[in-house]
Amino acid sequence: MSAERAFIDSLRALASDPAARGLMDDCAVLEIGNEALVLTHDMLVEGVHTLPGQDPADIAWKLVAVNLSDLAAKGARPLGVLLGHMLGPGDDRFAEGLGEALSRYGVPLLGGDTSSGGPPRCWGLTAIGRATHRPVPSRTGATAGDTVWVTGPLGAAMAGFEALRDGTDSDSVAFRRPLACLAEGEALAPLASAMMDVSDGLLLDASRMAEASGVTLALSSADVPISVPEARRADALRWGEDYELLFTLPAGAEPTVSAWRIGEVRQRGEAPLLLDDRPPGGPLGYEHDWDRSAPARR
Amino acid sequence: MSAERAFIDSLRALASDPAARGLMDDCAVLEIGNEALVLTHDMLVEGVHTLPGQDPADIAWKLVAVNLSDLAAKGARPLGVLLGHMLGPGDDRFAEGLGEALSRYGVPLLGGDTSSGGPPRCWGLTAIGRATHRPVPSRTGATAGDTVWVTGPLGAAMAGFEALRDGTDSDSVAFRRPLACLAEGEALAPLASAMMDVSDGLLLDASRMAEASGVTLALSSADVPISVPEARRADALRWGEDYELLFTLPAGAEPTVSAWRIGEVRQRGEAPLLLDDRPPGGPLGYEHDWDRSAPARR
Repeated sequence: MSAERAFIDSLRALASDPAARGLMDDCAVLEIGNEALVLTHDMLVEGVHTLPGQDPADIAWKLVAVNLSDLAAKGARPLGVLLGHMLGPGDDRFAEGLGEALSRYGVPLLGGDTSSGGPPRCWGLTAIGRATHRPVPSRTGATAGDTVWVTGPLGAAMAGFEALRDGTDSDSVAFRRPLACLAEGEALAPLASAMMDVSDGLLLDASRMAEASGVTLALSSADVPISVPEARRADALRWGEDYELLFTLPAGAEPTVSAWRIGEVRQRGEAPLLLDDRPPGGPLGYEHDWDRSAPARR
Repeated sequence: MSAERAFIDSLRALASDPAARGLMDDCAVLEIGNEALVLTHDMLVEGVHTLPGQDPADIAWKLVAVNLSDLAAKGARPLGVLLGHMLGPGDDRFAEGLGEALSRYGVPLLGGDTSSGGPPRCWGLTAIGRATHRPVPSRTGATAGDTVWVTGPLGAAMAGFEALRDGTDSDSVAFRRPLACLAEGEALAPLASAMMDVSDGLLLDASRMAEASGVTLALSSADVPISVPEARRADALRWGEDYELLFTLPAGAEPTVSAWRIGEVRQRGEAPLLLDDRPPGGPLGYEHDWDRSAPARR
């Protein structure tokens, strides 16, 4: 078991409130008044989630996008964000990128904290949203017979990362400035039986949805849309960071936004995830581990 | 101007929503449904806020306490927290301390994020609360003629820090496991014209309240309760981390909890803060700066 999994398991006892959704979801869902408030917190760490010398404006943009993407997976409309920021060189660029991302989505900064420290520097963002549909979609609702969908092609973030890392002319914007599928999430929330964003790799995230729902997700590799050459298909299915939405629909239902059907939900078999009817080999995606001897993807 | 102040100033344009309170307050106050939601995010950085080899259980405790203390200053009742955690050695102790602090206050963990990275490690916590009194107390309401109060003696955290740093037998619990004055904040919220917690030093925090309110706070040094020898009075007034509440009351009003009267509010004069009728000399408290040549307090 990874250190990440072990630690999260040790926290589960502290998260018995139903709002925590057993820490099995990307967001907490807090009922207050007549509203369902959706809360998420994601962090970026210099050297783990960023490349050396990366423009702080892009780091700030990504910090906003990854958190709003979690709200998108709940069909939530953002109300604001709180920033945890480690002060350092390029803070003017960080503030610029933060402003660009927040104004792109019309979301206000509500507060936060700054500290000295690092390198590595680390940034945290908490995003708060209001659910637009109840019940709020979760990872747990996938049922045998449902169909499995993704809102867009995968692999662009991987290609963008490689372009930026290698200093090529290829476009790196998909890695640097991903977009959160807020409109898509809101449109899908009334329909989807389960929904999440693809942040750590399609196969890993699909296996998490399958585990949370107690089912098997059977994906067809060839049906997954990719935006990279066919030779990179296996990598694109594992890379993540495209922040498309992965969702399931009851049999016969059609999505109301552009989406690709990539598989079906089956009763839980031996494996939570099948790719072309076999459990996929090797790592499914990206998991954090503090053991530095473990292979780092980047 | 410190790097912290400059960065926060650059963010103010992104924080025009009234819920952000102009980033002049420790918490955001978000009106939703019939409720006022109170939100805060504070971070701890290894080596900046912690001592080498410090028990991760104490770090986790403090992370909870400093955030709940911000809710206390708003008279808010905590609903839950989100954790940003950098994985590392001693995570089992961290989870224990987190559980102890959360159960001390009956607050659930709602979610969060983990990452590899560091050292230094960094932790962020977002605390969400529900206001128990409207309007929600702020730093901006102090008015000439008000009296100035603090809920308890200062200096214990400083003495605890020094005991822990120097390995003496003295009790370090006040530094390691501070308490948030939640009950006091709730009792004072209907009375206080302005309120905040003392986190960065009484003099610095009092000057911030004065600036936010557009007044002068005139404190009487001898009236400030301290829990250290008289020779350390000047240090105790500047050290912070005791997490007592600093508040103002309209003339004639008496606090409904145990508190010490330490001064009065005057119309804004040349200086925002007077100590024994003079602007206090030297640093008022603790401000972060990323310039490593700047003197670090710890």
